[in-house]
Amino acid sequence: MSTKFSMVAAHSRRPAGEDSIFAINNAAQQAAKVHGADKVVNASVGALLEDDGKLSIIPSVIELLRGLPAVEYAAYAPIAGLPNFLEAAKKAVFRDQTPEGYIEAIATPGGSGAIRHTVWNYSNAGDHILTPDWYWGPYKTIAEEHGRFISTYTLFDENDHFHIEAFCKTVEELLQKQDQLVILLNSPANNPTGYSLSNEEWEAVLSFLKQKAANAEKKITLFVDIAYIDFAGKTNECRSFMKLFGGLPENILTIVAFSMSKGYTLYGMRCGAMICITSNQDVAEEFKAANQFSNRGVWSNGTRPAMTVLAQIFENPDLLKKVETERSILQQMLSQRAAAFMENARKVNLKVCPYKAGFFITIPCSNPEAVTQELQKDLIFAVPMGKGIRFAVCSVPEKQCALVPEKFVKAIAKFE
Amino acid sequence: MSTKFSMVAAHSRRPAGEDSIFAINNAAQQAAKVHGADKVVNASVGALLEDDGKLSIIPSVIELLRGLPAVEYAAYAPIAGLPNFLEAAKKAVFRDQTPEGYIEAIATPGGSGAIRHTVWNYSNAGDHILTPDWYWGPYKTIAEEHGRFISTYTLFDENDHFHIEAFCKTVEELLQKQDQLVILLNSPANNPTGYSLSNEEWEAVLSFLKQKAANAEKKITLFVDIAYIDFAGKTNECRSFMKLFGGLPENILTIVAFSMSKGYTLYGMRCGAMICITSNQDVAEEFKAANQFSNRGVWSNGTRPAMTVLAQIFENPDLLKKVETERSILQQMLSQRAAAFMENARKVNLKVCPYKAGFFITIPCSNPEAVTQELQKDLIFAVPMGKGIRFAVCSVPEKQCALVPEKFVKAIAKFE
Repeated sequence: MSTKFSMVAAHSRRPAGEDSIFAINNAAQQAAKVHGADKVVNASVGALLEDDGKLSIIPSVIELLRGLPAVEYAAYAPIAGLPNFLEAAKKAVFRDQTPEGYIEAIATPGGSGAIRHTVWNYSNAGDHILTPDWYWGPYKTIAEEHGRFISTYTLFDENDHFHIEAFCKTVEELLQKQDQLVILLNSPANNPTGYSLSNEEWEAVLSFLKQKAANAEKKITLFVDIAYIDFAGKTNECRSFMKLFGGLPENILTIVAFSMSKGYTLYGMRCGAMICITSNQDVAEEFKAANQFSNRGVWSNGTRPAMTVLAQIFENPDLLKKVETERSILQQMLSQRAAAFMENARKVNLKVCPYKAGFFITIPCSNPEAVTQELQKDLIFAVPMGKGIRFAVCSVPEKQCALVPEKFVKAIAKFE
Repeated sequence: MSTKFSMVAAHSRRPAGEDSIFAINNAAQQAAKVHGADKVVNASVGALLEDDGKLSIIPSVIELLRGLPAVEYAAYAPIAGLPNFLEAAKKAVFRDQTPEGYIEAIATPGGSGAIRHTVWNYSNAGDHILTPDWYWGPYKTIAEEHGRFISTYTLFDENDHFHIEAFCKTVEELLQKQDQLVILLNSPANNPTGYSLSNEEWEAVLSFLKQKAANAEKKITLFVDIAYIDFAGKTNECRSFMKLFGGLPENILTIVAFSMSKGYTLYGMRCGAMICITSNQDVAEEFKAANQFSNRGVWSNGTRPAMTVLAQIFENPDLLKKVETERSILQQMLSQRAAAFMENARKVNLKVCPYKAGFFITIPCSNPEAVTQELQKDLIFAVPMGKGIRFAVCSVPEKQCALVPEKFVKAIAKFE
């Protein structure tokens, strides 16, 4: 806190923060100018890049966007989102794995907006929001912006599986203190670890929550962040866990966050949706009303042209196939990079979090800040986190991914 | 409130509301199908339409948007907004009327996002936000979403000027109860009345606020919503009041909301900015930090392609001229419609709010709901408000604008 003159209300006064990822990315770009881009490993960027460092793009999506009639850019979308977009978003999320229950959707700016509405509408001021100890930093920003706190549990057990005991224990503790509980779970292809819960692990999670929901005072909102699902394996296989969200007690509400950022390479268009699954029709209607009100009360409405593009894709099987074919090239590039990293990590005995799929691999270590600095001497730029280092395989060519694990081993050894 | 099963937290429980403007617009469209579009006056739409009912568009803006390289749609913008967009937004807002002081900008989704951040960061929970009695409905939605209340003062005195006494009295009352005061003022071309404060009226407002700011405990944020400024008169003339925001005490912060929705006909792209003017550098830096944090904590970042379009326009004088030339056709169409309405209102002695410019004319009357219903018998669809009826000259052809005042007189007479 500073003694400088301040105009904001007390709850908005914060120590000056710096975006460390931005700073690291800057340092990597400076290094590329000095040493040449091919000498620098910039693993700080959270977007899928081609080997030449350019952003990966699904061309048919951009083509659709450019080809819209003028009015589609110019006109407002309805507050809740274009109806045909909301239908398309449900299809994009569930594909053939639609759970039983009442399902409603509301457009939001990316997945972030969906998190905001969920945190705000389904928890109380001062409540704790639950995430694993490995989590995407902005979860904390969103919680703090809205006067909530983050509580964490250990994500992995000693066998590198989902730590169900740690999860249950923390849920238990929080439910002793609060009636509303929002649980944020980013799976499959978790950011930052690349972990995906198995269906058995999902079943264990839900079975425990059902037990807790026997207390009718408790209201549990399970928020499933699937930002990376289109890079998490076979379309229906990696969505099969969604069927499990059917038939839950009425005081467990599941909300799935859809985003066009990664799966449709439309990061810059800010288009997503929040989709609820509930066994109680009142809860579904309340979801629609409350989050539509919040849309109007926060950002008014969403980006219409992106909505129309998604609607077009899911109204035309040929278009969908084209998008999927183009996306599969990106998926393959990504999984080859990850495979190269993982294979070499095994060879040199580098301990990594149990990666299944997605944009990031995480290397747990002590002293992540120092290790990250040490790696920069080898022109490797990665992101230090609380208990390890996030390496963005999404933004690093396969050849470099293969060479990096050995460097990690050496850098980590220096500080152990 | 209902007895239905509910999952949301207590602060998000609300009686089911209906969007009345949406319902009226629907009714107008139904009537057009039955009676023919040329027989129906649909004055419910808050966007500028051509005489044939199609959305008015500035073609060169759409052309720029369509012509961007793919990466401009695909890539994220920085959290605070693209730097060249923020510079362009300042130019678009101030033109040659930049006030003295520290000026910073943060990108937001339209003007709505700017209101949200201002209300959240510059007032406390439970505070009252000040607006005139004629105000855009979503001001209330935004306040309520964030646990604030709306307080109003009478906008017009008996001479149809800004009611400075009413304004001062309400500011006085609120500052006795709270230290943080956010004042929302939509001028020039106020929605719904079309009123613009004169520079003398602005001076009176600021002179009073300066007086109140002598109490260093009080922190006053003056939020100026200029959504319709590009339809409010000559470029620099209608911006000349902005010079007055220079040299204010450090505990008066001015925030101007910029939006690309109306002036650039990009409603559907959700791009705007909040721009601060302050005499204290700390306040400007805090503005940047707090609202960037809020961006990350609410919707993450903004619509990049729209930002790039604005940057291009203000980096190229020929492009700017082209946009302005195309916009001037729309401005002329709008002012002819308004002139036709006002001229005929005078002829038939219809009392209207003192319209200066903008999308809407408001007719004060008792029993606005009943009068609106009565007008629908003549196939005139307008929006009832608390103390009158909003007629959207922006969406009604000149010929119809000329015929409507007489119908208003008759309908109002029925209920007086």
